[in-house]
Amino acid sequence: MKSYRKVLTLNVPARTGFVNITPEVEAALAESGVREGLALVNPMHITASVFVNDDERGLHADFARFFDRLVPHEPTSAWRHNDTGEDNADSHVKRQLMGREAVVAITGGRLDFGTWEQIFYGEWDGQRSKRVLIKIIGE
Amino acid sequence: MKSYRKVLTLNVPARTGFVNITPEVEAALAESGVREGLALVNPMHITASVFVNDDERGLHADFARFFDRLVPHEPTSAWRHNDTGEDNADSHVKRQLMGREAVVAITGGRLDFGTWEQIFYGEWDGQRSKRVLIKIIGE
Amino acid sequence: MKSYRKVLTLNVPARTGFVNITPEVEAALAESGVREGLALVNPMHITASVFVNDDERGLHADFARFFDRLVPHEPTSAWRHNDTGEDNADSHVKRQLMGREAVVAITGGRLDFGTWEQIFYGEWDGQRSKRVLIKIIGE
Repeated sequence: MKSYRKVLTLNVPARTGFVNITPEVEAALAESGVREGLALVNPMHITASVFVNDDERGLHADFARFFDRLVPHEPTSAWRHNDTGEDNADSHVKRQLMGREAVVAITGGRLDFGTWEQIFYGEWDGQRSKRVLIKIIGE
Repeated sequence: MKSYRKVLTLNVPARTGFVNITPEVEAALAESGVREGLALVNPMHITASVFVNDDERGLHADFARFFDRLVPHEPTSAWRHNDTGEDNADSHVKRQLMGREAVVAITGGRLDFGTWEQIFYGEWDGQRSKRVLIKIIGE
Repeated sequence: MKSYRKVLTLNVPARTGFVNITPEVEAALAESGVREGLALVNPMHITASVFVNDDERGLHADFARFFDRLVPHEPTSAWRHNDTGEDNADSHVKRQLMGREAVVAITGGRLDFGTWEQIFYGEWDGQRSKRVLIKIIGE
């Protein structure tokens, strides 16, 4: 069994944003030499998501608005987590709703995706450097 | 390491519906010959979910009603994704909330499930043919 | 390829509660002898979650309150699943929103976590004994 590890670093300039990291995951897969297996992709942080959906700007605006309404950032005093001095309790909740990780099949050396599947990094508490882990196992 | 790939095709006759695909995943596992490993099951589409829950009709009605109220299909003009000519922005959001994929342990050649665990395909934008990927790795 | 399986048993004394099981997963990893691979952690029940987030008491209170408001337990008659005699329809929905499973990378014999990542068992229908499956594959 082969295994391969790579860490991406991202810095989203707003509190919320979605970045298509499919090319970076494909590059890691090529470097790994794995042809059959699984790729795990997850943020190494707890106020961010990795997810698979559509690379469409309007949809990303819908995601941001929907989750901001459902899990309001303000008033920050409404959240007990923010009693610690943080202001990002909502980001922790949004990360749970959107999900933490994507596990993707690898077949014939490629990400085994349908036509529209793309992998995104979803930031809920940005304006600072964050890491995304890619772990590939297989043969 | 062995790997095995199978694709199911489903066509749910309504916009929303839940289909128990546990027998199909068990059949794929038997075909794979894998006795210890992991099975990944995911739609190859971005308006559908694969998830593990209970095979109970009332619960499925609750799922459909809860998610339709939380993420309304109409007015379709409320969603920026629908400016593209699509009408399924809500389906993309529901898929995120319900989840994309199930990763299931394989032990002794069986899905390593508790008493009530069953795998479902969850459709949020049906009335057309969709594919579900089963990828099994192990020994 | 090595594989290792361990089952934890937990009994959360309230309907809702969050238990940090990172030490138990680390112990299972040490027992497995796996140095490179993946760990899958999931409840063997359908009204509970396993997730990765922060070990902070205020945040856990926020999680409990947020999900109880979004998916109310009462009136129990509002849910069709409860027509079966159960009263836990809300717990099945909460489990979907919070997620079922965590898949974690293993690198150099350690859980490959960022600074704040911890694994939790999330109970939505407690006051009884529940099982959590840890399945580790790799080399």
